[in-house]
Amino acid sequence: MDAGGARTEEWADVTPDAARRLLTAAVQAFAERGYHATTTRDIAGRAGMSPAALYIHFRTKEDLLHRISGVGHRLALSLLTRARDGSGGPAERLADAVRTFVRWHAEHHTTARVVQYELGALAGEHRAEITALRRETDAVLRSIVEDGVRTGEFDVPDVRGTSLALLSLCVDVARWFRDGGERTPEEVGDLYAGLALRMVGHRPAPDAGTLT
Amino acid sequence: MDAGGARTEEWADVTPDAARRLLTAAVQAFAERGYHATTTRDIAGRAGMSPAALYIHFRTKEDLLHRISGVGHRLALSLLTRARDGSGGPAERLADAVRTFVRWHAEHHTTARVVQYELGALAGEHRAEITALRRETDAVLRSIVEDGVRTGEFDVPDVRGTSLALLSLCVDVARWFRDGGERTPEEVGDLYAGLALRMVGHRPAPDAGTLT
Repeated sequence: MDAGGARTEEWADVTPDAARRLLTAAVQAFAERGYHATTTRDIAGRAGMSPAALYIHFRTKEDLLHRISGVGHRLALSLLTRARDGSGGPAERLADAVRTFVRWHAEHHTTARVVQYELGALAGEHRAEITALRRETDAVLRSIVEDGVRTGEFDVPDVRGTSLALLSLCVDVARWFRDGGERTPEEVGDLYAGLALRMVGHRPAPDAGTLT
Repeated sequence: MDAGGARTEEWADVTPDAARRLLTAAVQAFAERGYHATTTRDIAGRAGMSPAALYIHFRTKEDLLHRISGVGHRLALSLLTRARDGSGGPAERLADAVRTFVRWHAEHHTTARVVQYELGALAGEHRAEITALRRETDAVLRSIVEDGVRTGEFDVPDVRGTSLALLSLCVDVARWFRDGGERTPEEVGDLYAGLALRMVGHRPAPDAGTLT
């Protein structure tokens, strides 16, 4: 249905090669049929391996989902953290965060859908770990919004709700984005960066003129 | 996991009673396990009926999904159309549209998730019908934004992209909303109505003072 599952750069750190092949096969299968309708046999078959070979790398189907979810959530967190720690002011850093986050959700929409829609299938400890990563991600974006409120560049009556809405807007790109559609990931990223600045009531800082 | 599936008012027009029970059972099953992992036997069982009794009302599992998707999409369209045709100015009508749309996605998040995430399972003709409803929904919201641009109350460089982003923001409420969570559907609706006005660069019309 889309080429998203064929992108492998997000799994580049996974070794050995067989484990990486199994993860990309699992992403494709979960995205097409859903987690519960997919068997480890399906996944092994897509990866050109036997079910027995799969069990060398992953004990269960849930283990595969946990690994996929972890990679996706850690990437999202690192993208936002990098934007937060950038050198510009809050507006520049918020725009950067949104632009990068949107581009990732557009380019990797197959993975992002699995990561976002199959959370309910994660077991106890795994779910707690991913929930912690999600809280951290929320906090990183929120801290950029708080910075802007502190400097007076942003006007945000509800920082917590607005920060969650910003993340939500970005995440939903994975639902509707189609490869080869009307807009490129870059174009969506630019549009959304502008919308994000509007959502936080951005106005240039009083001394912003000296920076240009 | 949530009480959303227990809400039956959205199915009030479905008769006979057995068909309505099957639809609500199907929503619950699809939401919990995904469309592909659900069998018509599961659905009949949840509705307290035999598989044979199910086939009196629905020929296939896809038939059930099509019916659910149609009900959901027609409700969404009617909510937005009512807001568009309201008596206020563009800002009031946009706020009303977003508030109502968000509340629906929060209150009926189980149905909304099935409607939004299982579109790919709809067959040819059914999918075309739902796609047409979605285009109509997009156009209704866009027309409110266009009205505001025309009167000068909204400042929107990219009307099409901004309208889609507004809908996307509302739809994603179904993904993260939890019954009994931090905010009520009404509170989320109010927050999002305010954010929507920011996204369209709302400024009161020159003669707005005469209306207060």
